[in-house]
Amino acid sequence: MDLKELFSSFKKLDKKKISLIARVRSNRQGKVVSFMVVNDGTTLNDLQVVYKPETKGFDSAVQSRVSSIVEVIGTLILTPGKPQPFELQAEEINLLDQAIEEYPLQKKEHSPEFLREIAQLRARTKTYNAVFRIRSSLSFAIHKFFQENGFVYVQTPIITGNDAEGAGEAFTVTTRSDDKYDQDFFGRKASLTVSGQLNAEAYAQAFKNVYTFGPTFRAENSFTSRHASEFWMIEPEVAFADLNQNIKLVEAMLKSVIEYIFAHNLEELEFLEANQEEGLINKLKGIVDSQFSVMKYEEVLEVLKTAIKNGHKFEENNIVFGLDLGTEHERYICEVHNKKPTFVTDYPKEIKSFYMKLNDDNKTVAAVDLLVPGIGELVGGSQREDDYSKLMNRIKELKMSEEEIAWYTDLRQYGYYKSAGFGIGFERLIMYVTGMSNIRDVIPFPRTPKNLLF
Amino acid sequence: MDLKELFSSFKKLDKKKISLIARVRSNRQGKVVSFMVVNDGTTLNDLQVVYKPETKGFDSAVQSRVSSIVEVIGTLILTPGKPQPFELQAEEINLLDQAIEEYPLQKKEHSPEFLREIAQLRARTKTYNAVFRIRSSLSFAIHKFFQENGFVYVQTPIITGNDAEGAGEAFTVTTRSDDKYDQDFFGRKASLTVSGQLNAEAYAQAFKNVYTFGPTFRAENSFTSRHASEFWMIEPEVAFADLNQNIKLVEAMLKSVIEYIFAHNLEELEFLEANQEEGLINKLKGIVDSQFSVMKYEEVLEVLKTAIKNGHKFEENNIVFGLDLGTEHERYICEVHNKKPTFVTDYPKEIKSFYMKLNDDNKTVAAVDLLVPGIGELVGGSQREDDYSKLMNRIKELKMSEEEIAWYTDLRQYGYYKSAGFGIGFERLIMYVTGMSNIRDVIPFPRTPKNLLF
Repeated sequence: MDLKELFSSFKKLDKKKISLIARVRSNRQGKVVSFMVVNDGTTLNDLQVVYKPETKGFDSAVQSRVSSIVEVIGTLILTPGKPQPFELQAEEINLLDQAIEEYPLQKKEHSPEFLREIAQLRARTKTYNAVFRIRSSLSFAIHKFFQENGFVYVQTPIITGNDAEGAGEAFTVTTRSDDKYDQDFFGRKASLTVSGQLNAEAYAQAFKNVYTFGPTFRAENSFTSRHASEFWMIEPEVAFADLNQNIKLVEAMLKSVIEYIFAHNLEELEFLEANQEEGLINKLKGIVDSQFSVMKYEEVLEVLKTAIKNGHKFEENNIVFGLDLGTEHERYICEVHNKKPTFVTDYPKEIKSFYMKLNDDNKTVAAVDLLVPGIGELVGGSQREDDYSKLMNRIKELKMSEEEIAWYTDLRQYGYYKSAGFGIGFERLIMYVTGMSNIRDVIPFPRTPKNLLF
Repeated sequence: MDLKELFSSFKKLDKKKISLIARVRSNRQGKVVSFMVVNDGTTLNDLQVVYKPETKGFDSAVQSRVSSIVEVIGTLILTPGKPQPFELQAEEINLLDQAIEEYPLQKKEHSPEFLREIAQLRARTKTYNAVFRIRSSLSFAIHKFFQENGFVYVQTPIITGNDAEGAGEAFTVTTRSDDKYDQDFFGRKASLTVSGQLNAEAYAQAFKNVYTFGPTFRAENSFTSRHASEFWMIEPEVAFADLNQNIKLVEAMLKSVIEYIFAHNLEELEFLEANQEEGLINKLKGIVDSQFSVMKYEEVLEVLKTAIKNGHKFEENNIVFGLDLGTEHERYICEVHNKKPTFVTDYPKEIKSFYMKLNDDNKTVAAVDLLVPGIGELVGGSQREDDYSKLMNRIKELKMSEEEIAWYTDLRQYGYYKSAGFGIGFERLIMYVTGMSNIRDVIPFPRTPKNLLF
């Protein structure tokens, strides 16, 4: 029987005979009774096994080291007074495989840095077990939300010849050890994708509602706790939609996936609240319950100026049109000013991407970022430029290759009426939901500069 | 209103006023009435719009070219005698965006080869629309099956330093234009993953049941209809499981995902049966209804020898132990001999991977392939070698780097009792389910040698 099943049905199993195979988490010999804590990986909860000298297999049970695999057969006993709701009184314990003494994850506190060196093992600790269980649930919650709302999942390409967005920050993919890319595998220079958005936009014209969910890459020499070289992105795109519909979609998606985590991973959230982030659960409830705010970028500037006038100090106090808001500004807006998640719209075109729709003022674009308490920007999106000549003008201004991106710009010539979408960095969402503060701790095997273990 | 919603509720909408935004698929002016066929991408089914000179916007409606975007407002009329169950009698048609005359996808038959050149548009054709809708549903059905059965989804790394399996067939990932990998981004040579299995195995020791679902890569100069340089793989792994449990999991998964497609994509299947593969639906029903066969590799050899004795001719007629079965042999076994999907187990160790469990005969391993009618091998899996010294021997025999893979082999020293899993090429599954015969036609933007469009 799986431990998960046991925990969901133990009330009916009092005094019943149970057997299961699991890993030893701790093993303590007492004078009269001995205690073995085991877990089979199917749940965060451990099972306490009580055994005695008369238990069959006692001699090897006593010798079982941390991380060994045992089969335990015994009687389930409800223990209403104790911290755990039940325990197993063992009749028999079979040591199926003894772990070596040098097993690196002995029962003591380890630093996140040390655990990253043994990423193949760290999911066995309670914290990482909770984190990666939530990572899996969040993945599914995202798919479920989009599939149930009529979105088609598009697996956009990982290897790409389209360098439009990632200039200078893309990894090269090659089978050569020089730069003669015309003789390379693809007959041209190939890169790892930095975004599936342009491909998704093409597919939105075929299916109306689409989303991507896949790995993206940045060859950026950032050693911060928020940057990884390989991370996953979700990029929905809706044809015939404008910025307001986009905003509604972001809000509906976030609420839906967090509700899913409450319904499926409450014990993991409770563990993380106790061990990682105080107030985690209330923070997430706030997302589900609040009606998000919407402000224009220029309104944000006014709020920041007033804050400074009233004595607030930012690191960047020069609040002028064109400023790329820093995390300090973003957090002030959603934490201090609005006290809830806040959409900021209509950013200056200079600090946003070429494909965003130019507003009538000719200086801002129909962009939107979602700022959330505790983290700042979580989502970035926009309505796309639908006017072919405006889009081509912007491409010329930015000196991008018109030819390379013609397949994309031409979509505007083939019948095109509005399109909007957004991107959300999956790891940033996981950090937000789990309370983990380093991106390396929410990726099973993280990739960062000079770090390529496993 | 979405067209999909319209098709699911039209019976209640007779004589009701409807409006929707959609793309023009065809537009034919008649003497009295004109007909416009439109689709908004939410369903495979088209809507026929009937309009007349008195329809508001008639002049521009008549001019609307294929692929233009229109808003149509009109009355829904049930049409029981006609091929389509209802049509829209337009009161008003607004041409929202006119497509250029040179739109490449005019209403006529196009070759798959031509359509691959315009992969950004081909999902607008009925065939590719059906294929990519099924691709999306299959993705979700796979996640749903595993999540509902307690599996944790692990996103294994795409960039890897672990070249164990892909020797010679892996793409290099670099930020340099030479081969000084010690000075490269990761400080060592980096490749694109050929499989997430080894990483998944480590995670199965933490969660018991895990699966991967992500892109994998082969830098192989194959120009066949079954090979692509970038494709997605699903790789489940179950700790404490043996080969028989693995076999049961494959069968349960395949039946579950095909049932999901029957429940959600019947109209796509019907379209593909009519246009791509005769008997497609019966073939898939066969998967759901049949109890799959199980045979040992050596039994397969006997069957093939008997077939040859009885006059059957294979291209490879030298049936000896050690033969790597060809597609012709695989298809004979499941199509002619068993007439149903067939698991073949216990292959010679020489033709299988280093990590598979050596059987007591010392010459075969606990491997399993699933052969299905019409295609041959669809799934490959194994029970993993749990004995540390046997695994190390095999690694030495194959002259692999012991040091590089120590993080993986060491799992056997840290408490390890059986593990089994399999891999299924997602595109091969899509080909099987859709009846498409070329892998380039089931990948949104396919990557093959010398081909890197979009």
